[in-house]
Amino acid sequence: MGLTPEQTTEIEGARARSQPTRRATVPALEELLFTAIPVLDHGFIRVVDYMGDDSAVVQAARVSYGRGTRKTTEDEGLIRYLMRHHHSTPFEMCEIKYHVKLPIFIARQWIRHRTANVNEYSARYSIMDQDFYLPAPEHLARQSADNRQGRGAALDPATAARVLGLLRADAEQTYSHYEEMLDDTGIGLARELARMNLTLNSYTQWYWKTDLHNLFHFLRLRADAHAQYEIQAYAHAMLETVRAWVPLCHAAFCDYRLGAVTFSAKMLEVLKKLLADTPVDQASSGLSKREWAEMLTALGRPVG
Amino acid sequence: MGLTPEQTTEIEGARARSQPTRRATVPALEELLFTAIPVLDHGFIRVVDYMGDDSAVVQAARVSYGRGTRKTTEDEGLIRYLMRHHHSTPFEMCEIKYHVKLPIFIARQWIRHRTANVNEYSARYSIMDQDFYLPAPEHLARQSADNRQGRGAALDPATAARVLGLLRADAEQTYSHYEEMLDDTGIGLARELARMNLTLNSYTQWYWKTDLHNLFHFLRLRADAHAQYEIQAYAHAMLETVRAWVPLCHAAFCDYRLGAVTFSAKMLEVLKKLLADTPVDQASSGLSKREWAEMLTALGRPVG
Amino acid sequence: MGLTPEQTTEIEGARARSQPTRRATVPALEELLFTAIPVLDHGFIRVVDYMGDDSAVVQAARVSYGRGTRKTTEDEGLIRYLMRHHHSTPFEMCEIKYHVKLPIFIARQWIRHRTANVNEYSARYSIMDQDFYLPAPEHLARQSADNRQGRGAALDPATAARVLGLLRADAEQTYSHYEEMLDDTGIGLARELARMNLTLNSYTQWYWKTDLHNLFHFLRLRADAHAQYEIQAYAHAMLETVRAWVPLCHAAFCDYRLGAVTFSAKMLEVLKKLLADTPVDQASSGLSKREWAEMLTALGRPVG
Amino acid sequence: MGLTPEQTTEIEGARARSQPTRRATVPALEELLFTAIPVLDHGFIRVVDYMGDDSAVVQAARVSYGRGTRKTTEDEGLIRYLMRHHHSTPFEMCEIKYHVKLPIFIARQWIRHRTANVNEYSARYSIMDQDFYLPAPEHLARQSADNRQGRGAALDPATAARVLGLLRADAEQTYSHYEEMLDDTGIGLARELARMNLTLNSYTQWYWKTDLHNLFHFLRLRADAHAQYEIQAYAHAMLETVRAWVPLCHAAFCDYRLGAVTFSAKMLEVLKKLLADTPVDQASSGLSKREWAEMLTALGRPVG
Repeated sequence: MGLTPEQTTEIEGARARSQPTRRATVPALEELLFTAIPVLDHGFIRVVDYMGDDSAVVQAARVSYGRGTRKTTEDEGLIRYLMRHHHSTPFEMCEIKYHVKLPIFIARQWIRHRTANVNEYSARYSIMDQDFYLPAPEHLARQSADNRQGRGAALDPATAARVLGLLRADAEQTYSHYEEMLDDTGIGLARELARMNLTLNSYTQWYWKTDLHNLFHFLRLRADAHAQYEIQAYAHAMLETVRAWVPLCHAAFCDYRLGAVTFSAKMLEVLKKLLADTPVDQASSGLSKREWAEMLTALGRPVG
Repeated sequence: MGLTPEQTTEIEGARARSQPTRRATVPALEELLFTAIPVLDHGFIRVVDYMGDDSAVVQAARVSYGRGTRKTTEDEGLIRYLMRHHHSTPFEMCEIKYHVKLPIFIARQWIRHRTANVNEYSARYSIMDQDFYLPAPEHLARQSADNRQGRGAALDPATAARVLGLLRADAEQTYSHYEEMLDDTGIGLARELARMNLTLNSYTQWYWKTDLHNLFHFLRLRADAHAQYEIQAYAHAMLETVRAWVPLCHAAFCDYRLGAVTFSAKMLEVLKKLLADTPVDQASSGLSKREWAEMLTALGRPVG
Repeated sequence: MGLTPEQTTEIEGARARSQPTRRATVPALEELLFTAIPVLDHGFIRVVDYMGDDSAVVQAARVSYGRGTRKTTEDEGLIRYLMRHHHSTPFEMCEIKYHVKLPIFIARQWIRHRTANVNEYSARYSIMDQDFYLPAPEHLARQSADNRQGRGAALDPATAARVLGLLRADAEQTYSHYEEMLDDTGIGLARELARMNLTLNSYTQWYWKTDLHNLFHFLRLRADAHAQYEIQAYAHAMLETVRAWVPLCHAAFCDYRLGAVTFSAKMLEVLKKLLADTPVDQASSGLSKREWAEMLTALGRPVG
Repeated sequence: MGLTPEQTTEIEGARARSQPTRRATVPALEELLFTAIPVLDHGFIRVVDYMGDDSAVVQAARVSYGRGTRKTTEDEGLIRYLMRHHHSTPFEMCEIKYHVKLPIFIARQWIRHRTANVNEYSARYSIMDQDFYLPAPEHLARQSADNRQGRGAALDPATAARVLGLLRADAEQTYSHYEEMLDDTGIGLARELARMNLTLNSYTQWYWKTDLHNLFHFLRLRADAHAQYEIQAYAHAMLETVRAWVPLCHAAFCDYRLGAVTFSAKMLEVLKKLLADTPVDQASSGLSKREWAEMLTALGRPVG
């Protein structure tokens, strides 16, 4: 998974230490703390710190909305209310920090989420390890015919092997030249230049810290079935840590975001007709064919 | 100080509880945790949560810049290096959350710092307490004659008493009418409307959470001698909590920010002449009179 | 409307000037440029600058997604696709700047939207005008009985008159004392202190600049029927300027945001049952009473 | 320079069109508008839109600080005052949008500046062109011996040729395999996967939009002599567009940021001693050797 023996030892040491604190503490997340959860072939995520819990969200909301009794059922109802009505600021009161190892082409997608704090391994200062991502054969797929940014059917085994051979050989060769250029008994090229010869499936790593609201925004987009498989794999691993950390917020997020569907004003008109058994078809609906299909799919109806 | 007996009891209860954690923990800040530190006549700040410590800054920097040994002297040197060269992202890895009670006209200044998370007491949902700020007589000062945004000499005692009388009477009267308008056996006006009758020295409160880099930015501007006294009072109280939390970062901040001076390119030319005993005066310096005075003052020289 | 004669003259002068530009230019918005659109009793909004148009959104999307033909129908379809699928970055390529005059208690709500640039009139530097908001009698309403943050029925005329009398008298008295404290032939109190005696319905003004994505986020929350009436009034005036500026984006926003409804995963299950004529009621739905009512209301069905 | 003939034609068409506008317009920047300014071997920057000018900064400041006469000398003084005292919000009232073509490893550095809007060419949707960066031989340098992130002496011509040969051959081979994997009559691999085989010197492009304050922050770090040469090249080209756009702001930026030096509290003590001819050396100064050297260098004194 790309942890060095030193890192493994360091993690075990950190997990063995414990201090008393007055802060909000979540035993289920403490249990996961520092442990590397494998993602892809050499990547991982690790929770390395956190602040707050479900109650911190409730507490922040109650500063705004006044206090009341404190039963768990009321906390759950309040959290669901906040999520449903997009009251985002109470969720910003929780913070989490991950250590992530991921391929550069995925890091470039990830970093488009700007509302986070990042410290990335610097290839200007340090030499990159020889770690590169090779997809499992079943994840090597053809370009989708009907979705300009998606995947279609998996490659047949022989073609997949051919692709993996190309990816591996090119990554090994470019890394080997990277090392040759860096060798300070030979060329001794500056690190900030030599790195340009690496391929985009090289692994990098970073510390990434964000608040729960922005994390949910990230997860809504990246745990979605339309996201690229590789970033989905990270998002799903993170979602499990969120479930351990803030179970009430996690449940509300699954109900109101991950599993939710938004209907436009026009779609709502169609829906009302469907409920009233008034005939309506795509042509008369005001929806484009694509929207019509999206709507029926969301309702579990045949698109035909 | 504007804590209700219920709040005091709640704080004592929270301080009495302790849980084990694997997270970075700072005993000196734990000692302060939840305690209200008085500011102005009825305000306070309280640290209600935090994430990270001096080592978290070092750890984040070392993700970027490679690892080394871990002696405290090296950590201190690295933190000073990061601060001096404006490498801000490692400081973003620490987070702190305050509960603050403050006058509205100060809250309006404070909120101009946008990179923070805020949950404020809502006067749409809840009724505001009758708490308003009255300056101590020694802080009642005349408009500065030479600084359009500053204070000059203190008012004489009789005039100060006159001002306090006006402020107190108006705040009491407007609050009394606020209550009258809210009374649901009488007028029963909506809270979101009635609040408009309150004066700007009414106290509000909020949870305010930010990372260490943005907190330093806030403190550099608001702990500065040119900031309005009232917000300085909050900044100085917060600075003490930062000293308890991240002593190495705090020391670097004091040296490289609070006590530092920036000289422009033109000022640098003047400085070189001064060091070389080459005659230079304001007229020949290329500096405006104001800049000339600012520069000499920074160097501890007579402006004349 | 609270424009001084000097400001009116300045606006007329600015409107009379015209320069050639190679930039994207929108005649319908140029027609509105600089003109103050009245809001509330003394407030206004004015568009003072803008960047981009509908085509700038399309152009930015096509950098990402590749090029194609450039018919307007295709632009409209692309803009609708971007809005529907929450591809927000192309909308960030348009920017608008408003000059707004608004009551302070509304400014405090508004400023919670942090992703914008703001320059506000400073009462540390300058003396506030005597301008305060008094609601029209029909907007003076009782606290809602069933919504902790809303308004209920309008006050009867006599009670409304009583409220307006209180608001006016208090605003005039506190302003008069503000002036008295400032008078530099008398007390001469520093402006930064005297301002604390003003009431929250005093008008302030600011330049407020944001991109189209964040403007839509603001408008979705503030043009909503649940927003406080006073901020709705500003949002609706701004919405008209958006319609003039980027008509295709505006139409997509109205369909997919303002008029849209989101159903949670649980609601979607209910919806499927309703469409299949499978009996379902609140008790068996898994929805809370409140959610059940919200859902039926959205579908235009009786809640009973 | 990596513009296609179609793009060149489109740019010429856009430059030939002109519309009247009431907005602030800057003829010197209009003259540059849309034109691609070459950077590195195949990159460029183009200004594609802008909002505001020097006067917009002044206007925003005067909303805050009150009005006065409007002579250019006063505008210049005000802009210098704002820059000197870090009053950043007026500079945020100007906005600029660039189209940039740049190598991916530089894009990864650039994107760490988060306060900007970005739309990047997507290799999920579209096929990357065969464009990669090869440094000019004089920019191929050895790793610095005393600066972990810098360059030292240039490579000798034979070694430089060897490096360029490796870079070129690897980029060509990986691109050729990229094309082979994409070929939909053959392997037909999904674009989102095939892209991982490209090297980090491949060119990408984006629209990048930011406000003047954040642009200055970017330029202060990236036009600095310690920045990587390749990003400096972009920063210097952008600095020229800023000079054309807002000459007064540009001059203040050069004086108070680019050419300025900050002395810490400890350095200031040393400086006072130097000015008073009081003996002081590194050992007694409280400064580290590194700081001592940095300080003397800034003052133009021999470090010895």
